[in-house]
Amino acid sequence: MTSERIQIVEKILDANDQVAALNRDQLDHYGIFGINIMASPGAGKTSLILQTIKALKDSFRIAVIEGDTAPVTIDSQKIAEQGVPAVQINTGGDCHLDAVMLSRGLGKLVLEDLDLLIVENVGNLICPAAFNLGTHCNVLIASIPEGDDKPYKYPNIYRNLQAVIINKIDLLPYVNFNMEYFEQGIKILNPKVNIFKVSCQTGKGISSWIEWLSVKRNSTD
Amino acid sequence: MTSERIQIVEKILDANDQVAALNRDQLDHYGIFGINIMASPGAGKTSLILQTIKALKDSFRIAVIEGDTAPVTIDSQKIAEQGVPAVQINTGGDCHLDAVMLSRGLGKLVLEDLDLLIVENVGNLICPAAFNLGTHCNVLIASIPEGDDKPYKYPNIYRNLQAVIINKIDLLPYVNFNMEYFEQGIKILNPKVNIFKVSCQTGKGISSWIEWLSVKRNSTD
Repeated sequence: MTSERIQIVEKILDANDQVAALNRDQLDHYGIFGINIMASPGAGKTSLILQTIKALKDSFRIAVIEGDTAPVTIDSQKIAEQGVPAVQINTGGDCHLDAVMLSRGLGKLVLEDLDLLIVENVGNLICPAAFNLGTHCNVLIASIPEGDDKPYKYPNIYRNLQAVIINKIDLLPYVNFNMEYFEQGIKILNPKVNIFKVSCQTGKGISSWIEWLSVKRNSTD
Repeated sequence: MTSERIQIVEKILDANDQVAALNRDQLDHYGIFGINIMASPGAGKTSLILQTIKALKDSFRIAVIEGDTAPVTIDSQKIAEQGVPAVQINTGGDCHLDAVMLSRGLGKLVLEDLDLLIVENVGNLICPAAFNLGTHCNVLIASIPEGDDKPYKYPNIYRNLQAVIINKIDLLPYVNFNMEYFEQGIKILNPKVNIFKVSCQTGKGISSWIEWLSVKRNSTD
């Protein structure tokens, strides 16, 4: 019985990767650069997306797919107010997005009108790491008040990333946070990852992230 | 095929509840009051547990069961330094504790020597809500820098709680956080829940939580 259950799990994961590959083909066909933004609840995913839209909406045609565990439109509304198409995926209590959910989200967008797709995953440092969506780039937002031990405690999510954004650096004077220890934890798991230190509140550091993302986006043309 | 899969899920949940009932029987048999502490990563679970041990270790014989998604002993070591028995459960990447894991943890403690068991669940606002452990009391730690919209976005975890601890109130001057909106969100989901506003960093507000927990513990005698 155990081996049967393991086989089922393998099949599901395999199916996810197959749909992820189809998603990637679709994005590439339309010349869309797709990024998957992950973080724990409240680390600043929506704030970073709003900053990114503000900085890049004149350069690229952007859309956002929002993963939410409950049917609330708090984040999607903030995105839509920026004049950018936003599709909300309610996971119905599930703790992550998967490739099939993203595929359905893509079906609600006019892909020929897009250059950059931003996916906001469900707020969770564990499960989203296990589901490839087919996007080109995985980005994790870490937040200063979460503490400097997170790469050591949640290693899986740090392994398959192209960028880590350390948000809320404006709170550094008020919390115990050893940046060296934190960065060391990241580099053990993922030596080549790009690290950006920002405050979505004040805007500090955002320009380096924007420059990196623009170069990445343009290298797909 | 869909209905078959649903049946399997129901069976697993049912098995969890059965083991949770056994855990509860075992705790009651030894007169141990068990609390299950949940929160997103970095909200302050270990800090609250350390404050609780400091305040109550002369009144009650305490043990801690630590759920971690990776085999790191950062939190367990901090607990053990307080002279309190600590058992670490490595979930092997899983995003929550379940009743079987807790049962195994209980097996490593000398139950007749305990009055209070504190369970630190895996850092996650979604999955732990679905798994009854058999403890007497569910406590959620919310953190000011996570933002005031969390009850609206992660409603399931707020529904089955006896206490919400709003931690890091020392950061209120530095972030946008509408306490009224936050508390309103909690009360819609769980009108009778007890709310404590604390700073584990400064110790502010901890005494009300300690008093409430002591009364709860003593009412089980």
